[in-house]
Amino acid sequence: MGLMILKGKDIISIKDFSVDEINEILKVSEDFESVARGEKKLDIMNGKVLALLFFEPSTRTRFSFECAMKRLGGETIGFESVESVSVSKGETLADTVRVMEKYSDALVIRHPKEGSARLAAMFSDKPVINAGDGAGHHPTQTLLDLYTIKREKGRIRGIKVAIVGDLKYGRTVHSLAYALAEMGAEILLVSPVGLEMPLEIKKDIEEINGKISEFHSLEDVIGEADVLYVTRIQRERFPDPEEYLKVKGSYRVDLKLLERGKKGIIVMHPLPRVDEISPEVDSTEYAVYFKQTFYGVPVRMALLSMVLGVM
Amino acid sequence: MGLMILKGKDIISIKDFSVDEINEILKVSEDFESVARGEKKLDIMNGKVLALLFFEPSTRTRFSFECAMKRLGGETIGFESVESVSVSKGETLADTVRVMEKYSDALVIRHPKEGSARLAAMFSDKPVINAGDGAGHHPTQTLLDLYTIKREKGRIRGIKVAIVGDLKYGRTVHSLAYALAEMGAEILLVSPVGLEMPLEIKKDIEEINGKISEFHSLEDVIGEADVLYVTRIQRERFPDPEEYLKVKGSYRVDLKLLERGKKGIIVMHPLPRVDEISPEVDSTEYAVYFKQTFYGVPVRMALLSMVLGVM
Amino acid sequence: MGLMILKGKDIISIKDFSVDEINEILKVSEDFESVARGEKKLDIMNGKVLALLFFEPSTRTRFSFECAMKRLGGETIGFESVESVSVSKGETLADTVRVMEKYSDALVIRHPKEGSARLAAMFSDKPVINAGDGAGHHPTQTLLDLYTIKREKGRIRGIKVAIVGDLKYGRTVHSLAYALAEMGAEILLVSPVGLEMPLEIKKDIEEINGKISEFHSLEDVIGEADVLYVTRIQRERFPDPEEYLKVKGSYRVDLKLLERGKKGIIVMHPLPRVDEISPEVDSTEYAVYFKQTFYGVPVRMALLSMVLGVM
Repeated sequence: MGLMILKGKDIISIKDFSVDEINEILKVSEDFESVARGEKKLDIMNGKVLALLFFEPSTRTRFSFECAMKRLGGETIGFESVESVSVSKGETLADTVRVMEKYSDALVIRHPKEGSARLAAMFSDKPVINAGDGAGHHPTQTLLDLYTIKREKGRIRGIKVAIVGDLKYGRTVHSLAYALAEMGAEILLVSPVGLEMPLEIKKDIEEINGKISEFHSLEDVIGEADVLYVTRIQRERFPDPEEYLKVKGSYRVDLKLLERGKKGIIVMHPLPRVDEISPEVDSTEYAVYFKQTFYGVPVRMALLSMVLGVM
Repeated sequence: MGLMILKGKDIISIKDFSVDEINEILKVSEDFESVARGEKKLDIMNGKVLALLFFEPSTRTRFSFECAMKRLGGETIGFESVESVSVSKGETLADTVRVMEKYSDALVIRHPKEGSARLAAMFSDKPVINAGDGAGHHPTQTLLDLYTIKREKGRIRGIKVAIVGDLKYGRTVHSLAYALAEMGAEILLVSPVGLEMPLEIKKDIEEINGKISEFHSLEDVIGEADVLYVTRIQRERFPDPEEYLKVKGSYRVDLKLLERGKKGIIVMHPLPRVDEISPEVDSTEYAVYFKQTFYGVPVRMALLSMVLGVM
Repeated sequence: MGLMILKGKDIISIKDFSVDEINEILKVSEDFESVARGEKKLDIMNGKVLALLFFEPSTRTRFSFECAMKRLGGETIGFESVESVSVSKGETLADTVRVMEKYSDALVIRHPKEGSARLAAMFSDKPVINAGDGAGHHPTQTLLDLYTIKREKGRIRGIKVAIVGDLKYGRTVHSLAYALAEMGAEILLVSPVGLEMPLEIKKDIEEINGKISEFHSLEDVIGEADVLYVTRIQRERFPDPEEYLKVKGSYRVDLKLLERGKKGIIVMHPLPRVDEISPEVDSTEYAVYFKQTFYGVPVRMALLSMVLGVM
């Protein structure tokens, strides 16, 4: 497959990619690792400008896009809150997009409202990359999650991934579960009662013959999982604070739990974490969440260079 | 005329330029268009730093300066609000300017108070470019407006430009009208009663033999104008909300109006717009306002390279 | 001494440097002056990314680091307030650091809490540079202060430096006084009653045989000092507003005072100033505070290139 497959394309949802395209992105990402580490220099983005439209705060996503672009010799412009731009004067998203695309070669957008990225793409002649649109999609997060599993476990097919936490409201886990199923991983869903993954997502996954099973306790999966993908459980989802505290405690990943796990088990987390993972895990081989953060750089380098057609 | 005419100069008001100088800037801007589009690479700003002092929010002006500088291989530093800098510790504008010029090759300043840019220039050894000082001037906006007319209508001399909206308080229209007159355009002023262009501005224009006439309705000019330059009418200018709503409606530009216009009529707007222009116009040949936004990039490239003497 | 002495090192406190190392940094800084002025181009930071973690607002420190990096062909990423990043979601400093170091080659941190920079360094594999941690240290400010004295007075040894202002709470004066003593300067402390330099700092200085004496009035030192290093006296330190006004007035540096000073006396200030120095001084030979601001650029260029090992 050629490297030009994504040139000029919008990246809105992980579902926009075929399995072959995902594999191609993961392969290209590997080539960029030494550049992402600062060991090798590439100037392929020289003269290029990436616009970052962040209508919501972000650390990881914004800075890893910036790092990806800048290490490759490119530049970024943009905003990280609506206060400093004309949006506060009542400008529509469509107009903001049509303006920003005049100053750039591609746009990255994060917005609290689902569907915003798709809307933005309609009004932009330049490629639009969705960096999270509310309860919608966050395809570059999914790609870096897939890349992390491939790099750390050697492959994705056949790997048992336990997705742990609030699976009802969590932004990224829906598309992650779908993509994992598509790539041949086996999915173990672990969530508190009432925060299970929505039925329609599970149906979507079953339609592509994805292997998926559901649990309510970390204990049920610890002997089986190759990967614990831990996410935050937000206090505000619980009507009863007591209920929250109980759940929070029983979903905490610590060394005692991990030592009973399958050989080679790893812990992932999209970050920021609050206290889902005990700090004692940080310096062990189990902890992959900071590496995962790093992997966002080569993956975004790959995506940007493919979309801008500069490879 | 040499390209070094502006080297080291402050750009405070459009009146600081002779007609020859404006023509020169517009000519140089055209040379930069392919770079602004990302089609051609130039590294002439390599190692240069432009300081952006935005004491007021801005989208277009700030990002188009950033884009201009970065596509040419240069860099920017600066702030977009006073909260994140020492201004909040009581530092004077003079001190902020004297500090920022130590870190840069030129300064771009936007400030809510008229005269701020001129004051800043007094305290800076490096060139200062006014990016809007309250009710004062905004010369780079005027230059890009002139450039848009030249590019879209082929020339400025003899073109009939209807300037529409709040002509009393509108920041940019005063200097635009003056510059248009100087460049030989014919000006049709269209404003609600009470928001007419101030007498002294009209006198200034008459003194240079500018052709100028006044109207209160779009209907009066639609058959005659080559360009409709539309601006916002702000609610807060009207003591009576009913009056505002009446005026707002009758100054809205839509397809029905434009279809009765002169052949080749175009619509310009400095943006952001609220609802002065119907969205149905956006995808038609009439709409030039997003192109106008883009033209800000080559014009600012031209100005920066001339001021920094790097051509 | 080789230029690699600081490669990979954290820069937390001026006390981390030996006198030889300080002299080496000051020597290297001089080599970078023409680059800092934009007269000479160097691309040694090409492909490098510096992360700026500013948990507190800053003008000078942040922009001079940015300018240093960008004039050398490098890039920066980062934040200038906690609102736009995940810190507001409850992320710990340790996690923020471990994330940001994945996107960069070195980290600059400013934080309101003393000890934060040292803590950050514990969690980062990349070098950490302290840009001020509350009542703690600010070593790059101290280095540029030393550099300013060396450049303006020819040497540091034997120079009489009067440090004026709030010597009790002032962030930078404690480490400055210590470093000056170490470099062989003679220190005259001038502060209002109750805002004297803390005993333990004076003891530290005496232990290294530093020459130090204390005064309560500018009059006492004006005939003797080679350098007046003026700092802000903050109103909130005084329980009685009347007392503040009295002190404020008697610590104001003006031409009348300076004309009675020693031949060649210079005035320094870390800025921002409020009204400790009369504006009439600004355009005289006495005023070195804006030059001092500029000197921050070559000093930070030297430090960054030594720490990143790219000379």
